[in-house]
Amino acid sequence: MSTTSSQQCSIVAGGAGFIGRTLVEELLSQGRRVVVIDNFSRGRREHLSAFLSRHELTIIQADLSSRSQCEAAFESATGSYSVDEVWHLAANSDIPAGVENPDIDFKDTFQTTYELLRSMRRHGIGIFNFASSSAIYGDLGATTLREDIGPLFPISNYGAMKLASEAQASAAAEGFLNRLNIFRFPNVVGVPATHGVILDFVNKLAKTPEVLHVLGDGTQQKSYLHVSDLVAAMMVVRAKQADAKIEVVNIGPCDEGVTVKWIAEQVVARVSPGARIAFGSGNRGWVGDVPKFIYSTTRIQSYGWSPAMGSEAAILRAIDQIALQQKL
Amino acid sequence: MSTTSSQQCSIVAGGAGFIGRTLVEELLSQGRRVVVIDNFSRGRREHLSAFLSRHELTIIQADLSSRSQCEAAFESATGSYSVDEVWHLAANSDIPAGVENPDIDFKDTFQTTYELLRSMRRHGIGIFNFASSSAIYGDLGATTLREDIGPLFPISNYGAMKLASEAQASAAAEGFLNRLNIFRFPNVVGVPATHGVILDFVNKLAKTPEVLHVLGDGTQQKSYLHVSDLVAAMMVVRAKQADAKIEVVNIGPCDEGVTVKWIAEQVVARVSPGARIAFGSGNRGWVGDVPKFIYSTTRIQSYGWSPAMGSEAAILRAIDQIALQQKL
Repeated sequence: MSTTSSQQCSIVAGGAGFIGRTLVEELLSQGRRVVVIDNFSRGRREHLSAFLSRHELTIIQADLSSRSQCEAAFESATGSYSVDEVWHLAANSDIPAGVENPDIDFKDTFQTTYELLRSMRRHGIGIFNFASSSAIYGDLGATTLREDIGPLFPISNYGAMKLASEAQASAAAEGFLNRLNIFRFPNVVGVPATHGVILDFVNKLAKTPEVLHVLGDGTQQKSYLHVSDLVAAMMVVRAKQADAKIEVVNIGPCDEGVTVKWIAEQVVARVSPGARIAFGSGNRGWVGDVPKFIYSTTRIQSYGWSPAMGSEAAILRAIDQIALQQKL
Repeated sequence: MSTTSSQQCSIVAGGAGFIGRTLVEELLSQGRRVVVIDNFSRGRREHLSAFLSRHELTIIQADLSSRSQCEAAFESATGSYSVDEVWHLAANSDIPAGVENPDIDFKDTFQTTYELLRSMRRHGIGIFNFASSSAIYGDLGATTLREDIGPLFPISNYGAMKLASEAQASAAAEGFLNRLNIFRFPNVVGVPATHGVILDFVNKLAKTPEVLHVLGDGTQQKSYLHVSDLVAAMMVVRAKQADAKIEVVNIGPCDEGVTVKWIAEQVVARVSPGARIAFGSGNRGWVGDVPKFIYSTTRIQSYGWSPAMGSEAAILRAIDQIALQQKL
């Protein structure tokens, strides 16, 4: 291992998931060693297929909400490599399922954070990059969501356990962390798509090409970020000279987003032209969904980042990518 | 049980602790039935000795962080009585211990909340009164701590798990709660004292009457609330006609507080006149302590409440009460 002994290593929790794939590619391109830890409940090994032959990539299967499995994974990673940072992308990604059964987010969204931080403390790893969410803000109506507003009243167990994770990481920053980067982002699109509105629509149309049934009345409006822009933003924050131990940044497009109706129309045009779109009622697709919000990205823009794609461009690109992924 | 069948019942989690005693007395005086659930790790049955002969009071020993014990306690309470609200006062109260070992606050401060809410959902109980803390704000320096500020970066695992609890309760309010009252308060004093600076000083002087060793340089300044004022404030919030499902209020005195040095001098004067006071260094007594903060109580005052005692009066009264409690 002498050739790699000085190579800095990143642990990426949930690295076989949707965002993980793009992050792992970026970290490898920076000349880093990467240890992905994933339980493969939602992540898949083939998401990383492009990098499986790279000796700089190690994949460990472990459920990070389990203390023994988390510790074993860290023992293995730190025993072989010089780990200086952890990226935490592991979480439940099915918000309605978590609303139905809170144990899902307790375990997958929060306990993973808790055990990761515990192992980081034991192994003296000082940099924690945490994928939080716009869901921590809850439904504040017309209030612009800035990083410094309150109160924070999440409306889903997912949002609650993301906020709990931020809180636990914050206490860890007071204790042993050298740097805590908290990334709060809303809907992210791209491939490999494992969930989300576009994949849902594409799959529905594959089954019934003549009609697309949409939950809600289609007026829900949200902003969307492409995963490539998200990872670029994370790198800008990570590279920033720290004034404080904790950096918290909203990451999102600089527009007011698009409606579900518009997305449905674009998906239909791309994969099943002429299909009828049938809307439901109400402007919330599911419990725990925040129908509309205004997301401030002033802070991350002041760091010199802006997204290459706005919501419309991100959605259009993702529809193309997901249609290809689904072989349509 | 026909005489009590229409009597509304409050579950008080942690009701055998410091604040529990005063709250239980208040609820009984309102003609309510009260079921105290406590694991007696820090609470003590004798704290409720004045009410043990009252048939309206039931005490159940259970560890609420345990799913099976929490559920069994709720089965018992709801099987016998008409429970319409839960007060949650159960938590770790030793912040430094929780900083040393995060599992303490994970279990005692957060998991208790999580299991209580789960049982409330199962048993259709719609009102949750939660004892949160000023610790959720973290150390924001000169920023006035209002209910609507952010970001919330607690510096202790205690503060982190109180914030996690608020978050989980908030998601429950979106789901099944009818009303969520969140009380954020700083240092509370009074009897039965189980922890805190006054009891600590009194006990130290009982051992070494000639000298009082103080952690830190004594310049830490904090505001203190007497437990009687706290419970009165909680009742004002609970009685308020709700505009929203969630009420979050800071509760505290309307002054900038007193220094540790001043408290030390008052304790010496009361229990060991002439004792020398020896200060340490630094203005943080222990990890996780917020040295100084400015606490906004504008909201609770707008509801018509103000404390009968300011910080000085609360401390002086508590010193008297605690000296008597310790038979000095």
